Amino acid sequence: MRFKHAVLFPVLLGLTLTAYAAKPAAKKPVAKASTQKASAAKPAAETTAAKPKSMQEILDATQPGDWRALDPANTLYLDLASGRVVMELAPGFAPAHVQNIRTLAKEGYWNGLSINRSQDNFVVQWGDAAEDDKQKKPLGSASAKLPAEFERASKGVKFDRLPDKDGWAPQAGFADGFPAARDPQSGKAWLAHCYGAIGAGRDVAPDSSNGTELYVVTGQSPRQLDRNITVVGRVVQGIELLSVLPRGTGPLGFYEKPEQRTQIKAIRLASEVPENDRVPLELLRTDTPAFTQLVEARRNRRDEWYKRPAGHIDLCNVPLPVRTPKK
Amino acid sequence: MRFKHAVLFPVLLGLTLTAYAAKPAAKKPVAKASTQKASAAKPAAETTAAKPKSMQEILDATQPGDWRALDPANTLYLDLASGRVVMELAPGFAPAHVQNIRTLAKEGYWNGLSINRSQDNFVVQWGDAAEDDKQKKPLGSASAKLPAEFERASKGVKFDRLPDKDGWAPQAGFADGFPAARDPQSGKAWLAHCYGAIGAGRDVAPDSSNGTELYVVTGQSPRQLDRNITVVGRVVQGIELLSVLPRGTGPLGFYEKPEQRTQIKAIRLASEVPENDRVPLELLRTDTPAFTQLVEARRNRRDEWYKRPAGHIDLCNVPLPVRTPKK
Repeated sequence: MRFKHAVLFPVLLGLTLTAYAAKPAAKKPVAKASTQKASAAKPAAETTAAKPKSMQEILDATQPGDWRALDPANTLYLDLASGRVVMELAPGFAPAHVQNIRTLAKEGYWNGLSINRSQDNFVVQWGDAAEDDKQKKPLGSASAKLPAEFERASKGVKFDRLPDKDGWAPQAGFADGFPAARDPQSGKAWLAHCYGAIGAGRDVAPDSSNGTELYVVTGQSPRQLDRNITVVGRVVQGIELLSVLPRGTGPLGFYEKPEQRTQIKAIRLASEVPENDRVPLELLRTDTPAFTQLVEARRNRRDEWYKRPAGHIDLCNVPLPVRTPKK
Repeated sequence: MRFKHAVLFPVLLGLTLTAYAAKPAAKKPVAKASTQKASAAKPAAETTAAKPKSMQEILDATQPGDWRALDPANTLYLDLASGRVVMELAPGFAPAHVQNIRTLAKEGYWNGLSINRSQDNFVVQWGDAAEDDKQKKPLGSASAKLPAEFERASKGVKFDRLPDKDGWAPQAGFADGFPAARDPQSGKAWLAHCYGAIGAGRDVAPDSSNGTELYVVTGQSPRQLDRNITVVGRVVQGIELLSVLPRGTGPLGFYEKPEQRTQIKAIRLASEVPENDRVPLELLRTDTPAFTQLVEARRNRRDEWYKRPAGHIDLCNVPLPVRTPKK
């Protein structure tokens, strides 16, 4: 028995292609002897039938135009001692916040500040830990006041809709490559709080966020936050540097002692970083047949390991493939 | 501006009551000045209207009979250098696996073995890391072969159904206190892969798990695994000891070097542990009016922070309150 390799298949698919695996070029692990045995025992009729493509095969068959490069002006690098987290901003949904975040990054606002909170199955959050307003780091030329950007008019938003049911919204899908939702009745669209979503922390007033205090979802998608707070982007690589941080033991997962916080070396726009220090990444476009095939391959998994394809996929379970382009 | 406390409310509710917060008696953080200001500014009509109960108020109003104590014969302690993970077994759904796990625990099977895998946004997994079958730890009097226990007849299962839509199953709810699903057409019920679910790793054959290799869900609920693998229980306390483990860099999140693994001091049944070393815990029963109120308080959050109650809750977003009983 090869229990070391148990749960091989669900995991394999999870690893290779989620946006968070940080291994865009991960190799498909070789099928183990036990798998080969199972194949050999299959009736001939079954083995000669057209085999559904695996995720890896779908990706291998993509064309260069199926991928889009991250735009350096919309890419933020969070540099920690443990490595770099790469984030994509969403100016289409949070233009004022993104503009402020760009200014804050350009002026080095977060450099030397810290990650102050990690709450299990919820969020990691960074910003200025100073308790007293007078001790807070100055905002420089960034705005202290921004509008709430919880949703936008869906008109003009290219929406790649999922056919699957969503309990939280009338329609779920992808907009600008981000997990999103839409309500045809209200004519609004908004970004969804899936794993890796980045939002702008706020106080009680809807317009009390200024983009300095950012959180990343590191647990079960808290979709109840949708349209209650401004989503500014998502992590595309390196989320495992955040998700492993020790959980804070204070209320809301805040660290109780300053020394428990993780220092931020720098948060910079990719466009402000020398080219040879940038992380070249490409994302699979969500408006391609390849993406549709990939979603279907996950909705109904047809490898040997799965005995019952789910026939469904949730918005936040859809992998958003990331790769390092070949030179 | 008090951005340290931004996202106060969603978090507060998350922290106090999820099964995973490991703080059953966590205090409700005091409302900050900014919140008080907001209250003061409210029109009188609104402040005098009947205020919906908070989660904490609902819990404070519970009666002793609304809670059930963990049964020591169905409780497993995973002891690590960092602390203890408390797990509840599900004999109603996986009787053969649970029986085998009890035997393995009694005979100290896992003691000295290790956590061998952590894959971001998916699972943590432990068992025998030996590659070669000949080097594997002997199973003692445990069975080497068990039936697949992916689902069971729903007849005889008390099912506390959620009225909310579920994309993965015709009906979602709670059975024996576990997140579960049901199909009236097939007459089957099964446990759902929510955050904290514990499953028995298997190879390609459905009946290839023996309960030695266990995984815990530490990410977005992988419900596609439902009915494809045997769920044996769930973590009720201490999951943050597992979810923070460094992610493995090998395929499927396995650690590449033996020294990266986390040693298991012991896995024992609570009933085999001296009483003064047990963790007394109680869980809110899911068939109580208090639980129904609590789910509604989360489905439609009506505190000042939330501007738009979701009107929906997903099975895997429902908190399952745990507390330490008063002496």
